[in-house]
Amino acid sequence: MDKVGIIGGTGYTGSELSRILCTHPEVELAALTSRQNAGKKVSDVQTFLKGYSDIRFTEKISDTKGLDIVFVATPHGVAMEEVPQLIESGIKVIDLSGDYRLHNTSDYSKWYGHEHTDPKNLKKAVYGLPELFRDKIKGADLVANPGCYATSITLACAPLIKAGVVENDIIADAKSGTSGAGMVPSPRLHHPFCGESIIPYSVGTHRHTPEVEMAIEKFSKTGVNVTMVPQLLPIVRGILSSCYMNLKKDMTDGEIEKIFVKQYGKEPFVHYVKEPSIRAVVGSNHAHVSSNVIGGKVVAFGVLDNLVKGASGQAVQCMNLMLGKKETIGLEAPGLGV
Amino acid sequence: MDKVGIIGGTGYTGSELSRILCTHPEVELAALTSRQNAGKKVSDVQTFLKGYSDIRFTEKISDTKGLDIVFVATPHGVAMEEVPQLIESGIKVIDLSGDYRLHNTSDYSKWYGHEHTDPKNLKKAVYGLPELFRDKIKGADLVANPGCYATSITLACAPLIKAGVVENDIIADAKSGTSGAGMVPSPRLHHPFCGESIIPYSVGTHRHTPEVEMAIEKFSKTGVNVTMVPQLLPIVRGILSSCYMNLKKDMTDGEIEKIFVKQYGKEPFVHYVKEPSIRAVVGSNHAHVSSNVIGGKVVAFGVLDNLVKGASGQAVQCMNLMLGKKETIGLEAPGLGV
Amino acid sequence: MDKVGIIGGTGYTGSELSRILCTHPEVELAALTSRQNAGKKVSDVQTFLKGYSDIRFTEKISDTKGLDIVFVATPHGVAMEEVPQLIESGIKVIDLSGDYRLHNTSDYSKWYGHEHTDPKNLKKAVYGLPELFRDKIKGADLVANPGCYATSITLACAPLIKAGVVENDIIADAKSGTSGAGMVPSPRLHHPFCGESIIPYSVGTHRHTPEVEMAIEKFSKTGVNVTMVPQLLPIVRGILSSCYMNLKKDMTDGEIEKIFVKQYGKEPFVHYVKEPSIRAVVGSNHAHVSSNVIGGKVVAFGVLDNLVKGASGQAVQCMNLMLGKKETIGLEAPGLGV
Amino acid sequence: MDKVGIIGGTGYTGSELSRILCTHPEVELAALTSRQNAGKKVSDVQTFLKGYSDIRFTEKISDTKGLDIVFVATPHGVAMEEVPQLIESGIKVIDLSGDYRLHNTSDYSKWYGHEHTDPKNLKKAVYGLPELFRDKIKGADLVANPGCYATSITLACAPLIKAGVVENDIIADAKSGTSGAGMVPSPRLHHPFCGESIIPYSVGTHRHTPEVEMAIEKFSKTGVNVTMVPQLLPIVRGILSSCYMNLKKDMTDGEIEKIFVKQYGKEPFVHYVKEPSIRAVVGSNHAHVSSNVIGGKVVAFGVLDNLVKGASGQAVQCMNLMLGKKETIGLEAPGLGV
Repeated sequence: MDKVGIIGGTGYTGSELSRILCTHPEVELAALTSRQNAGKKVSDVQTFLKGYSDIRFTEKISDTKGLDIVFVATPHGVAMEEVPQLIESGIKVIDLSGDYRLHNTSDYSKWYGHEHTDPKNLKKAVYGLPELFRDKIKGADLVANPGCYATSITLACAPLIKAGVVENDIIADAKSGTSGAGMVPSPRLHHPFCGESIIPYSVGTHRHTPEVEMAIEKFSKTGVNVTMVPQLLPIVRGILSSCYMNLKKDMTDGEIEKIFVKQYGKEPFVHYVKEPSIRAVVGSNHAHVSSNVIGGKVVAFGVLDNLVKGASGQAVQCMNLMLGKKETIGLEAPGLGV
Repeated sequence: MDKVGIIGGTGYTGSELSRILCTHPEVELAALTSRQNAGKKVSDVQTFLKGYSDIRFTEKISDTKGLDIVFVATPHGVAMEEVPQLIESGIKVIDLSGDYRLHNTSDYSKWYGHEHTDPKNLKKAVYGLPELFRDKIKGADLVANPGCYATSITLACAPLIKAGVVENDIIADAKSGTSGAGMVPSPRLHHPFCGESIIPYSVGTHRHTPEVEMAIEKFSKTGVNVTMVPQLLPIVRGILSSCYMNLKKDMTDGEIEKIFVKQYGKEPFVHYVKEPSIRAVVGSNHAHVSSNVIGGKVVAFGVLDNLVKGASGQAVQCMNLMLGKKETIGLEAPGLGV
Repeated sequence: MDKVGIIGGTGYTGSELSRILCTHPEVELAALTSRQNAGKKVSDVQTFLKGYSDIRFTEKISDTKGLDIVFVATPHGVAMEEVPQLIESGIKVIDLSGDYRLHNTSDYSKWYGHEHTDPKNLKKAVYGLPELFRDKIKGADLVANPGCYATSITLACAPLIKAGVVENDIIADAKSGTSGAGMVPSPRLHHPFCGESIIPYSVGTHRHTPEVEMAIEKFSKTGVNVTMVPQLLPIVRGILSSCYMNLKKDMTDGEIEKIFVKQYGKEPFVHYVKEPSIRAVVGSNHAHVSSNVIGGKVVAFGVLDNLVKGASGQAVQCMNLMLGKKETIGLEAPGLGV
Repeated sequence: MDKVGIIGGTGYTGSELSRILCTHPEVELAALTSRQNAGKKVSDVQTFLKGYSDIRFTEKISDTKGLDIVFVATPHGVAMEEVPQLIESGIKVIDLSGDYRLHNTSDYSKWYGHEHTDPKNLKKAVYGLPELFRDKIKGADLVANPGCYATSITLACAPLIKAGVVENDIIADAKSGTSGAGMVPSPRLHHPFCGESIIPYSVGTHRHTPEVEMAIEKFSKTGVNVTMVPQLLPIVRGILSSCYMNLKKDMTDGEIEKIFVKQYGKEPFVHYVKEPSIRAVVGSNHAHVSSNVIGGKVVAFGVLDNLVKGASGQAVQCMNLMLGKKETIGLEAPGLGV
């Protein structure tokens, strides 16, 4: 039993981590931090944990001894204050924020608006998308868990870029359920405003853009340009990213399918399907990828649950790899379907 | 052309008033107040007013001279500071908040948690439900516009109480769209929380309870007891109140229908129907009433758009009566249907 | 490994059974029937089963030998044609339709509109609500799995009736997500019609009414009268039933809570909470019960996922009991929370 | 008072026409056809018409004499059977189906799968997008009312193509509310399937594609290529089309805005805004257009209510032009806003 801690145990990704880990057969949910709730039983705050966990929130992660791995589920800017100490203590870390996703400090300060204070660990961080970077994750001490949009777009585009069949210019029209925006109430997330609408935001300026470019560029000899337009959907969970690329030469739907099947055919969580469906994956760590050729273009769809494969489920998948466990353990649930 | 002002021009009921009044053929939308937006063109803030109104927000309603009637669309507690001065100046007032709905100051302080500072006008205020109190509204200087829940429940129950066929004990299971809760973001109105749920709140303590009792008691020789459970629906606009009463003796569906038809048969905005439908009335000042006898009980449904017949549309209906206009003018639009 | 079959493997409750059973550690999903899909791989039709099951749909349940238990997930009227043969062959049966819920054939024909053709097994059938009838379920060969509304209402009301603190007259204002109505498209379930509304239907005539009366009457010395109004919510999964009863004498919230805690305090799946939440239980076999005293009345809320605790999850819970397994096995997932 | 008829008075666009026309001050709603409802009062079927119209459904449009203009609101294939006779009788026609939108019969048979039987009138038909083809509509006897997707995409793209600042290759990622798919229940429109999802369909094969190409090509010296991906949103009303184009040279947001303002600055119904909003236009004939430059690309958004500016409202706007009326009459209502 590995001992696991979560920094930021009450936000949406922290809660989702608890939800997954509390039935994980090979780890012990040993620490959850929350400044506001320190001292309280976690199951009094997160009522779904009643019967699953008896621990109490602590103020700091260092209040708990003997942890093997820690998830950081805080807003960006916080992780880089916590990570150095954890890494130094020999604790493995998975950061769900954006702090360790971009490879250099200048990109970070450009997109996040403040300096990166831990360039040393930034260099060592591995981008936690198992389907593309599995081997590196296995040996990593620090994993930067991908963003939800980034996961959906990268899964849909990387195989085609890698196969060299599309031009390196991607339009990603990305739609996300509201839980992706976190638990703090705001005018955009106010139900009367967003409940019967679809709302573009951060058009061309979303921080997952450079993350996608960075991840996909690893499979391209040239740079990759991503034009990303996020749009808020009136659903709670789920992302559909529709990604448009120009084909270098005429191809059939079947030829494109083959590329995806080659990439993902043996993956336990990523599936190439004819009709991608949010409901088929909601509540699970599964993702759908699909594609259609339209004239000289291809549209590739990436579909997942933003809180599971787009955040906490993928983090647990990384954890399993880092700790030498079976990759799927604790993540076996199929999607809700309906 | 009567000159009309709105205190609180940017909240949901204030906006809805503007939306209705800007195409009203017999009034001029002459003043909108907003502390935050004073000086700005109203159509720059409420973009739907572009092409409909050229005025600017003012800080105080007294900044505009020559007003004939003023709507107060503010949170409760504010109206009673504004109303005395307006009434004294000979301006008619329709208050959309709860400040003038309850008839005595002790009920007010019990349910609203603070003292009423304008008992003089409280006495004169007329409850603005035209289908039940039309004549009084016509002569009123101050109308207390009913709450959205209260309108739906009262319309569904008053005719049966008045006809003496049911006992004076009403269970009102009331469901409202989220726009009824106003425009300030809060955890309960946060889409990920409420978007795929139905959430009971203020169970047994909602302030519309005494208002319904007060309105219905006018048709009863004894007091009326209302047990009200409000529940938040994941829709933007619309209320369905399901009201349960014990029949004093066995009755058929047809006999109950007759009572409603007698009451509302000639009403332009309230319709007795077999299948009540929120979509049939959304966007309009229409309301549906329906009923079913179940054993020795009757369930009566009241359905309306909380922002129109439940607030601003009804306020305009009252205005039409107070100013001696045709009751339906400016309110002719049918519901969206779909 | 017990061998399990499902008659009606493609409807919503049949699919949900597959979803739960495919990761159940102690049973083998051995047979799924579907006339339309006979011969096809189940994972080609139910794509979420890819990687979870290799079997193919069969036409009849008798096509598969050696089954230990069979779930019947068909519309009512079908089960009573299948059950006699299964029981005779010594196969245990859990029927998710309404065919074996009512105890006598006259009630059945009154509410379902046709004769019951298997009165013999009807007599032996046990009503599968484990929290109230656990011991009988353990020894049963045939379990009638409760309806979704019925489960939510019964869980909320039975303890109070049993404790003798309320009168035997229940008003159940019940609201359900759309998946409760099954997978066949119809005007009422058409998104433009129901997507931004709440729609009363089968008012006073819903077939879960006698089922609730029958279940609760077992805890009452007198009969029980239930007035049930079902209403369709614009959400996919989830039920909230608001149940109103008159208190026999004044009681506090705390006293009512004690009754519920006494009943459910040790239950793994039913939880008394202050604020009932559909999202907290969605995707899981958990249910919430809550209550508020309002004057001389109490409102008790029953909340669950209609496809899990309201159908297939509860059926698996019954299966675990019937097969002598740990009651919670295969049902450990907490609710989604968000 | 012009006398107006509607063929197909019970579908969504036919109902929406009734809803708009029943308060139109200068026309008389004189005929509604419905085979199924012939003889019934329209207000008994379309209950929102109660108090607005006393006429009865007829079987055929020729049952009513003296009509000045007829709307055809039927599935495609039907209009071309009705139109020849109407035109011959000197009655003006607005067809809301796809029958007269494409200019040549070969395009029609390619996209609609059957022959066009009225090539003569096809040649005369004017595409009814007033903001781009106003003058032609004024003189037309037969107007082909644009599709909902086509209107949103064309409004967003035509000005940029016309100004020559973008390449003639458009990616239109289009999202529509469910009412756009009509009133016939189907698996895709079944609430449990679509209510918490976004569903791509007719990817690259939607019939509005050639319509957009045809409309925009009129402003281009070369052909235009449109790659269209329709996606079903879980909202009832509203379309957001996100249209991506490559800029021919670097441009600023302000420069793009100027092009739109030049095109639409004086339009009563089309507005260039910074933040496009479905809720701001729902229930009204208004449309929003917006844009952002992202690197060497521009994304242009087209937003409208698919049943109003995307169908029946636009048809009434055309009618006003054809009959020499004020263009906005009967269409003055602002969007709901909330």
